[in-house]
Amino acid sequence: MAEATWNRHHIISLADFTLAEYETVLQTATSFLEVLSRRTKKVPTLQGQVVTHLFFEPSTRTRSSFELAAKRLSADTLNFAPGTSSLTKGETILDTAKTYLAMGTDLMVIRHQQAGVPLAIAQEMDRLGSGVGVFNAGDGQHEHPSQALLDLFTICTSLSPDYPQISALKGKKIAIVGDILHSRVARSNLWSLTACGADVHLAAPPTLLPKQFSASFAAPLAEQSKAISTQIKTHWKIEPAVQDADFVMTLRLQKERMTRYLLPSLREYHQQFGITRDRLALCKPDVKVLHPGPVNRGVEISSDLMDDPALSLIPKQVANGVAVRMALLYLMGTSRN
Amino acid sequence: MAEATWNRHHIISLADFTLAEYETVLQTATSFLEVLSRRTKKVPTLQGQVVTHLFFEPSTRTRSSFELAAKRLSADTLNFAPGTSSLTKGETILDTAKTYLAMGTDLMVIRHQQAGVPLAIAQEMDRLGSGVGVFNAGDGQHEHPSQALLDLFTICTSLSPDYPQISALKGKKIAIVGDILHSRVARSNLWSLTACGADVHLAAPPTLLPKQFSASFAAPLAEQSKAISTQIKTHWKIEPAVQDADFVMTLRLQKERMTRYLLPSLREYHQQFGITRDRLALCKPDVKVLHPGPVNRGVEISSDLMDDPALSLIPKQVANGVAVRMALLYLMGTSRN
Amino acid sequence: MAEATWNRHHIISLADFTLAEYETVLQTATSFLEVLSRRTKKVPTLQGQVVTHLFFEPSTRTRSSFELAAKRLSADTLNFAPGTSSLTKGETILDTAKTYLAMGTDLMVIRHQQAGVPLAIAQEMDRLGSGVGVFNAGDGQHEHPSQALLDLFTICTSLSPDYPQISALKGKKIAIVGDILHSRVARSNLWSLTACGADVHLAAPPTLLPKQFSASFAAPLAEQSKAISTQIKTHWKIEPAVQDADFVMTLRLQKERMTRYLLPSLREYHQQFGITRDRLALCKPDVKVLHPGPVNRGVEISSDLMDDPALSLIPKQVANGVAVRMALLYLMGTSRN
Repeated sequence: MAEATWNRHHIISLADFTLAEYETVLQTATSFLEVLSRRTKKVPTLQGQVVTHLFFEPSTRTRSSFELAAKRLSADTLNFAPGTSSLTKGETILDTAKTYLAMGTDLMVIRHQQAGVPLAIAQEMDRLGSGVGVFNAGDGQHEHPSQALLDLFTICTSLSPDYPQISALKGKKIAIVGDILHSRVARSNLWSLTACGADVHLAAPPTLLPKQFSASFAAPLAEQSKAISTQIKTHWKIEPAVQDADFVMTLRLQKERMTRYLLPSLREYHQQFGITRDRLALCKPDVKVLHPGPVNRGVEISSDLMDDPALSLIPKQVANGVAVRMALLYLMGTSRN
Repeated sequence: MAEATWNRHHIISLADFTLAEYETVLQTATSFLEVLSRRTKKVPTLQGQVVTHLFFEPSTRTRSSFELAAKRLSADTLNFAPGTSSLTKGETILDTAKTYLAMGTDLMVIRHQQAGVPLAIAQEMDRLGSGVGVFNAGDGQHEHPSQALLDLFTICTSLSPDYPQISALKGKKIAIVGDILHSRVARSNLWSLTACGADVHLAAPPTLLPKQFSASFAAPLAEQSKAISTQIKTHWKIEPAVQDADFVMTLRLQKERMTRYLLPSLREYHQQFGITRDRLALCKPDVKVLHPGPVNRGVEISSDLMDDPALSLIPKQVANGVAVRMALLYLMGTSRN
Repeated sequence: MAEATWNRHHIISLADFTLAEYETVLQTATSFLEVLSRRTKKVPTLQGQVVTHLFFEPSTRTRSSFELAAKRLSADTLNFAPGTSSLTKGETILDTAKTYLAMGTDLMVIRHQQAGVPLAIAQEMDRLGSGVGVFNAGDGQHEHPSQALLDLFTICTSLSPDYPQISALKGKKIAIVGDILHSRVARSNLWSLTACGADVHLAAPPTLLPKQFSASFAAPLAEQSKAISTQIKTHWKIEPAVQDADFVMTLRLQKERMTRYLLPSLREYHQQFGITRDRLALCKPDVKVLHPGPVNRGVEISSDLMDDPALSLIPKQVANGVAVRMALLYLMGTSRN
């Protein structure tokens, strides 16, 4: 295991991640990817520890990935099912978290439809001196750090499979296309990609990418903000974003919301912003496509593209997701001691 | 492990628990609490055994506690989910239980909205000579033995952390406040607390505490009934109940039911029966408050009180719940051999 | 463990199962039944492997049996819950399967309300060169191979407990009674029972057993088809079917569907096709009754019969189900190497 120093107890946001931390995540995930290539894909790292998944917003895919990561570290897992929960009985979210703390939870993985819930729980855990680490598995439209870290790992291993390094991202052009406004995936990726020196180009219809987006996004950052604002370019057309791009990252459309309020039709969206072979012809020759899933085939991306292993990194993202989450749970667990 | 003799195969009701049994539970739970303080909080006691949770009435909190107890004893667990069950397909409850018996269940943990279901299943398991132990995790308004036993353990460890003994309860005044009428928690606690020699005072509005309650409650008991009826006092006001109390146990209000039929309003309930600092001033100086959870803050108990570690035993109850359930599963498992 | 050669990577249908394969399943399941009689009912066979249950059609009973089989082989298990799934988010079934493949699934157990889904997923897994084995846990009205194999194992162990052999089935008369038309259980059993040389008699009302049923059923088979068509007799009355039968297999009625469209009433169905002691008097003296469960007592079978261990093999079917599923997962896992 990579034994770089790691002092981050909770993983809530990538806004203040350091380059050393990104590097450590890459190295540790590389080690776990090696574990996953063995026949017995388990290590005893978290034996006897309890990882509790509090998924107030249901998500089978992400929960399965976290759960498998925890099990492969030999942790016991608990799942909080919102449908049958005490919440409907009038308990507050913090009280639910404190109940699982009292039962003996060591690490909490939290998803909530409202931004800020994982942070609030992390602060409460610290206030109580609990030692519990909190992992944001997606909060509202705020952040989804593990998705951005697995995207980073996937991009870096695509550039250099054996020894992924963040320095390889320097100067690479990465297009992020789609529903930027509502995407916690985009927000987390903006922190990591710009921190690592990539040139990020956003492309979306104006309803999904307000003019002031990148400025408002950069605001909370201290010295980095100026650097970031120069690195993020926004476009209301897809062509300038994907022109000479090294990587194209599409975002998921929430179909119901989109068609009702913000888009004329899914078909028109695909015509203007869908990723197709024609559009990839504008990119660098060895361009790769990413999507956080689940995919609406023929909307965000054409169906044949998605299935082309020479172009699509989507299955790699899912596979790397388990290794990256193992790495992060491991690092959080280590920092507790 | 405490190796006192233990012959109880099922845990359905505390009505006939002996003092020796209460003592054994306290000692065994103390041992498991020590296990839970280690870094690896697991013992191989139930390795290869199957604990099946049949929760006909959904409850994330209690199920998680039982599930964690089973996992920390290294058992495999199965969960029966009522929403997607064979019950909707016309199968009887006993047939569902027998199906899980046939699959190889060793211990069954059962919650049902109807009183008597765990007993009926236990009798069927015995009739079949199955050797399966049945654990009542709450049946209707009847009993919730593990809650009362964790309350007992929490009270006794509060009085004497290192060596909890039921003799410490002798003569202590314990107030139980709230929806006595509908509470299986109150019923189980009445058996254990009176058996251990505590003076129990019940306080509730008349709609939630009928005049004949304690008499009807004591009726089924043989020689103990007279002793019990002299130990339980009922009040329609909170003050005489909490006056000089050593422990105050509040019960959960089912808000929907309450406001519709039995209470003028939640606010009025809180004014008359809510636990507040002012009311605790009437108690013994070192009084402690218990609540089975989940809590409606500002209804059964004021919010600041609940968060005061000097007064509230609520997080301890949850933590002890895992140790007590480990102890009970262990003792049931032992008695099977 | 039985170490016969086994080359079947997926278990989708019994249509092309060979006698050698049936024999291997019986032998391997016998070994696992022995494991299940030990105190520690676990073997490390699938340690570090991941078995994913994709149950698009919910089923607690079958899922529990598969899950327990996987856990007793020491596999880690993932469950896909349709209610909270990405499917509602527009993802295709194949993409869901590919997501779980990418996460690191080794074996997939799939149930779907539509015939053909497990096959389609198995073909996609092969096309991708994934090495993942796919297990059909019931697809529409097509097949339910593990149910038929546990029925076969139960019948053969009933005939010869210590050394079950398919040759014992030769010439035995087996009546299958009930909703033949909609039953995937009946379809899978027809393949296995006829292949092993049993005489199969079907009995149902005309609405549930069309005249051309056995002919259309036998059609896909090559050289076996003539043999099969002579082995399957269909009846619209129960008496000729159960006359001198060695085994009577009843099928589950989906009550809602039945009463609405296809049957005059459940009571009338029971009068005409219900299994009762009177009707069993027509059978061989040592006749046994099977039912795949869950049972509608007093509809498919009289309640007292179901509980008579001298006549009912129903609990044995459930118990054998775990051993047979362990055997099949083990054999599939072995064939992957």
